Amino acid sequence: MDLTIYQKAFDGHLKEALKQKISGDPASLYDPVHYILKIGGKRLRPVLTLLSCDIFSGSCSKALNASLAIEMFHNFTLIHDDIMDNADLRRGQPTVHKKWDLNTGILSGDALMILAYQFFEPYEGEVFKGIISLFNETAIKVCEGQQMDMDFEKRTDVSIPEYIKMIDLKTGVLVASALKMGAIIAHAAPRQAQLIYNYGLNLGIAFQLQDDYLDTFGDDSFGKRIGGDILEGKKTFLVLKTMELANQEDLTELKEILSSREKSTEEDRIKKARKIFMHYGVHNLIGEEIKRYIDLSFDCVNKTDLPEAKKKHFLAFGNYLMGRNT
Amino acid sequence: MDLTIYQKAFDGHLKEALKQKISGDPASLYDPVHYILKIGGKRLRPVLTLLSCDIFSGSCSKALNASLAIEMFHNFTLIHDDIMDNADLRRGQPTVHKKWDLNTGILSGDALMILAYQFFEPYEGEVFKGIISLFNETAIKVCEGQQMDMDFEKRTDVSIPEYIKMIDLKTGVLVASALKMGAIIAHAAPRQAQLIYNYGLNLGIAFQLQDDYLDTFGDDSFGKRIGGDILEGKKTFLVLKTMELANQEDLTELKEILSSREKSTEEDRIKKARKIFMHYGVHNLIGEEIKRYIDLSFDCVNKTDLPEAKKKHFLAFGNYLMGRNT
Repeated sequence: MDLTIYQKAFDGHLKEALKQKISGDPASLYDPVHYILKIGGKRLRPVLTLLSCDIFSGSCSKALNASLAIEMFHNFTLIHDDIMDNADLRRGQPTVHKKWDLNTGILSGDALMILAYQFFEPYEGEVFKGIISLFNETAIKVCEGQQMDMDFEKRTDVSIPEYIKMIDLKTGVLVASALKMGAIIAHAAPRQAQLIYNYGLNLGIAFQLQDDYLDTFGDDSFGKRIGGDILEGKKTFLVLKTMELANQEDLTELKEILSSREKSTEEDRIKKARKIFMHYGVHNLIGEEIKRYIDLSFDCVNKTDLPEAKKKHFLAFGNYLMGRNT
Repeated sequence: MDLTIYQKAFDGHLKEALKQKISGDPASLYDPVHYILKIGGKRLRPVLTLLSCDIFSGSCSKALNASLAIEMFHNFTLIHDDIMDNADLRRGQPTVHKKWDLNTGILSGDALMILAYQFFEPYEGEVFKGIISLFNETAIKVCEGQQMDMDFEKRTDVSIPEYIKMIDLKTGVLVASALKMGAIIAHAAPRQAQLIYNYGLNLGIAFQLQDDYLDTFGDDSFGKRIGGDILEGKKTFLVLKTMELANQEDLTELKEILSSREKSTEEDRIKKARKIFMHYGVHNLIGEEIKRYIDLSFDCVNKTDLPEAKKKHFLAFGNYLMGRNT
């Protein structure tokens, strides 16, 4: 699927905004904002806002400001999450709190969130009201998801439904909201906009589950170090499902590996964990779960009143995102 | 001046909101939000929103949600500022990041800001639009002020106009905005609302300058430890004005005191700094400056179209805030 047209429109709009609107004194506040927005990334969420508005109205230009707000909010979460995760690198570059300091990270993150709200100001009437309400709801849910994620680190009794709820809030909701926002700006009927929200929500969950899978079972094309989740001891779907199924001996070994008490080399720890997952067929079970969420997601698109040709764009995006060639 | 009626209305509305709206899972996110909102304080800013709406429309009930949003935003700034200032106590209680931890402080602060935006949702149409725009502008300015304040700590060449700009952004703008918001909700004409904004802006600056004065020259009724600014080496108006006027010898001594290189007792350092300030008449100069801002502030009220009896309420609040018995 070719998203270049949306990516280019977004990049142009961002560039203009950085010059005209996201600047001022003190530079010590705005420099980190420019820095994180310029590091780039796939611009997936803003592209979805543009795509959705285009599909529902035949044009994406009205959604440019909203797409910028979505990307700015996303970058606010990255800055603050990187502090909370004590991460040194983001997209191969130093994180804001490492390049500057903790206080700069906190405050420039705050500023980014407020600036995101400012980019909704050109919208009027019911569209404005609808967008702000959606954005508020989304933003608070993303915070709830981040808090759950942090809470999980200290807990030993996380269930799979709780895990799904967490990735729903932390990842799904913003994808869903980016899509729905485009639909609202295109004046889509509320039911249509909600179906597209649900499409995004399920797709977001599928995407995160696939990320869990690829982190452990992917190849070099994944872009991140394979096995990172295992070395960090993350409670991913793979781990939680194995905990449901494994016998005491395997469970103890997995816990030793994840808590880094197991003293073999990193490569060995990754191999051992992978072997346990595969022994219980968890690599297949996650595949089934991913497929289930994609199906749920595509069902939502098929339930819309959109003409088949337009439905295909949403479905194609889903396949593109999941790396499926259909 | 009796503000009890507004304080009670605010407290009741907050209590209800904490029960009905500001709750949910995960508790680890919402507990710190409840904690900071319940610690209390003078509720000055939300009271101003209610007062202003009452004066312009004869009722304050419509402004209750906005007043809550203002207080929530203020508390968001307190949580994040306390992290940045590494403060242990707030209103005599442990700060959020001390009672919990850094991550909880960052994330519950973020949540508070978003929740503040949510409390504007009951407003409609142009009032909603006007409030959100004002709030966005205010929030970003408060961040700019906080950044300037942090930058000043590392600088040795801060000028008085820069300092006034900083307290304008960090303190004045939110007071001004609280007042203007009440006026907008009361459907006051734009010019009237702007005059009340300017009243608040100048009053806020006067209040902060008086805080500078009282921190060094106040008595026990001040509520904070006298001399705290000196011991922390803060670049207050007193310091910056003395730097403009003092000879090399006094300047060197003042710098030694503020940087804690001067090794006498805390009480002696406070006494010595106070003596230098007084030698250059800075305690009188700040008094003149405070009076100038109060006059500017009251001029704005007198320029409004309000009947004299109503103007008196704003003026009475100004005198109450500044502790002046007239």
